[in-house]
Amino acid sequence: MDKVRFGIIGIGNMGSSHALSLIHDIQGAELTAVCDTNPKRLQWAKEHLPSPVLAFGNPDDFLASRAMDAVLIATPHYNHPTLAVQAFENGYHVLIEKPAGVYTKAVREMNRAAETSGKLFGIMYNQRTNPLYAKLRELVLSGELGEIRRTNWIITNWYRSQSYYDSGGWRATWAGEGGGVLLNQDPHQLDLWQWTTGMMPARIRAFCRFGKYRNIEVEDDVTAYVEYDNGATGLFVTTTGEAPGTNRFELTGDRGKIVVEDGKLTFWRLRVPEPQFNAEFTGGFGQPECWKCEIPVSEGEGSQHKGILRNFTNAILHGEPLLAPGEEGIHGLTLSNAMHLSSWTEDWVELPLDEDLYHAKLQEKIEASTFRKNSGDGKTLDVSGTH
Amino acid sequence: MDKVRFGIIGIGNMGSSHALSLIHDIQGAELTAVCDTNPKRLQWAKEHLPSPVLAFGNPDDFLASRAMDAVLIATPHYNHPTLAVQAFENGYHVLIEKPAGVYTKAVREMNRAAETSGKLFGIMYNQRTNPLYAKLRELVLSGELGEIRRTNWIITNWYRSQSYYDSGGWRATWAGEGGGVLLNQDPHQLDLWQWTTGMMPARIRAFCRFGKYRNIEVEDDVTAYVEYDNGATGLFVTTTGEAPGTNRFELTGDRGKIVVEDGKLTFWRLRVPEPQFNAEFTGGFGQPECWKCEIPVSEGEGSQHKGILRNFTNAILHGEPLLAPGEEGIHGLTLSNAMHLSSWTEDWVELPLDEDLYHAKLQEKIEASTFRKNSGDGKTLDVSGTH
Repeated sequence: MDKVRFGIIGIGNMGSSHALSLIHDIQGAELTAVCDTNPKRLQWAKEHLPSPVLAFGNPDDFLASRAMDAVLIATPHYNHPTLAVQAFENGYHVLIEKPAGVYTKAVREMNRAAETSGKLFGIMYNQRTNPLYAKLRELVLSGELGEIRRTNWIITNWYRSQSYYDSGGWRATWAGEGGGVLLNQDPHQLDLWQWTTGMMPARIRAFCRFGKYRNIEVEDDVTAYVEYDNGATGLFVTTTGEAPGTNRFELTGDRGKIVVEDGKLTFWRLRVPEPQFNAEFTGGFGQPECWKCEIPVSEGEGSQHKGILRNFTNAILHGEPLLAPGEEGIHGLTLSNAMHLSSWTEDWVELPLDEDLYHAKLQEKIEASTFRKNSGDGKTLDVSGTH
Repeated sequence: MDKVRFGIIGIGNMGSSHALSLIHDIQGAELTAVCDTNPKRLQWAKEHLPSPVLAFGNPDDFLASRAMDAVLIATPHYNHPTLAVQAFENGYHVLIEKPAGVYTKAVREMNRAAETSGKLFGIMYNQRTNPLYAKLRELVLSGELGEIRRTNWIITNWYRSQSYYDSGGWRATWAGEGGGVLLNQDPHQLDLWQWTTGMMPARIRAFCRFGKYRNIEVEDDVTAYVEYDNGATGLFVTTTGEAPGTNRFELTGDRGKIVVEDGKLTFWRLRVPEPQFNAEFTGGFGQPECWKCEIPVSEGEGSQHKGILRNFTNAILHGEPLLAPGEEGIHGLTLSNAMHLSSWTEDWVELPLDEDLYHAKLQEKIEASTFRKNSGDGKTLDVSGTH
């Protein structure tokens, strides 16, 4: 094989962008088919994609076509696991958009299907290509920061107006998207939070507010407190209601402190580990010598979506290791599900999550929903630069 | 009256520093008496203070002496309310060191005694003289930030080694100090948190860890989540176990965001209030125009302890309004008590606090204590620059 033939299901905001990337930018990839149940999007495909690209109006025909080697799933969240399972059963490699799904019970089934199939499975965690977070992970996992003691991510620069939510009747509903800021804006941060540290919390107490700032039924404001097995604690604060918001990730460890903010990574490095200083110091007041280190990080935001498409293509063609294995999508979603569940039960949620309980509670929310929005026209918003 | 005669009870770390200030720096004030039950400290007084200053070995004689107009109380925390009540009953003006006390039940009695006495009552909230926080309060209370939506104070730059805790057997015990980082390091921030915003939380869920980093029985690591009546949320994160730590106070409001960090106050100001933008905007993605404003703040940390001493003196002599009325000390202590109580009960604590319950729980901790430290020699640590 010298080319990977890609088919895309869902050519809305992200799918159409990926289509153009596969055509123009990814060596070793070609786009051979697309699928969308929305006639307007199929029309877009006919007008904007080269004629050899097949266009299907339903997933069954698309998956039966054998027109591709790999399927990229860029549909609404709920369909990621079900379509992925179908694609694996049909013998395709699968790359899914984030989040992995809406509830982990379905994602676990998807992961099992991936394993059974023996096919490659990737997830569009494009922020893993961001040099800032790649460097952070490298520093933490190589032990430069020592044992982690605290993680604190303030990620509140997701301003969304009512106009955004009104642009699609399915937006920010339990039935349509299965969540709000956690499902739609934060999947990358929920991934990076544990990917850069290599640590999942042991338990979570979260305080979600639903429709606090907007006429929506899902969460638009969240404060989550977590505890890790090693005794470390963490915070994750997010909202779509604040402007201009903040994106600041602080990590503390035995060896100092790292702050990622404004595109910079700063490491306050202790000359000796804090526990050693504490054991040896006898002077009452005093603290370890600390060096403020500006850590070099490559310019820009990295290769992003194209980087993931390229990596996935090279993984199929040349066995390159996946930067974002699809199976890892369950971690970020577990955090998101746990935050909902903790708020609904007003209690701690221990991990591993009770996935059946979460699924049952989510179904209750969907069934109890009486929410109707002044729906927009379902137009495809320009998402340039907003991924 | 053209001079205020001061007497100081407790001439340890802070008291001796105040004694020298009153002698050398505060116009309109004179030091006429000191009192300490520790003979070593009385010896210090005889060696370092001018001979007209009377030195008493017990508070009863001191208060009976009529040698002063105002009493400054700089004893261990527990004694602040009891001594203040005694001083008011003896007809003195009273200035207390922070915190106001250890539990609000006693502080409330102190406040009542102050009111009954008709005397002036102040508290050493010297950080209220810091131009940064004075400016912050002015901006918030004048409405520049609009309605507050979130407060988030990371105050973790309180590194204390085991050597510090071992320097006094009473340190960081329930019986000796009644708390840890909240009672000893954070009283200023717990004051400024609500003084600068004019808002007390309605309820608190806190996660205190006791003796997490050091061989102590009180809290050395705290994450507290709060909710306000207006729907705003807040966080207060503090520890003595991290180095180098962080001191960053972020406030979000309808009109933007303020961050106080590194001695600077930055205001990201929205050109129109966010709710107005949201009501008028129809473009899907998009957010209010935002100006990054560097707010001018006077250099330095302000007049600090001397400023409070001067203000209290001028209040007595000339009726100058008190910058830090003693009655306000209960607010910060309420927050601290509520954080303990929430952790002990593993539940929300609603304000107003159940003060009898807190007092009963604190007594339980004291009675159940089996804690013994390798006690130091009770030496007076040099606290220059560490207030």
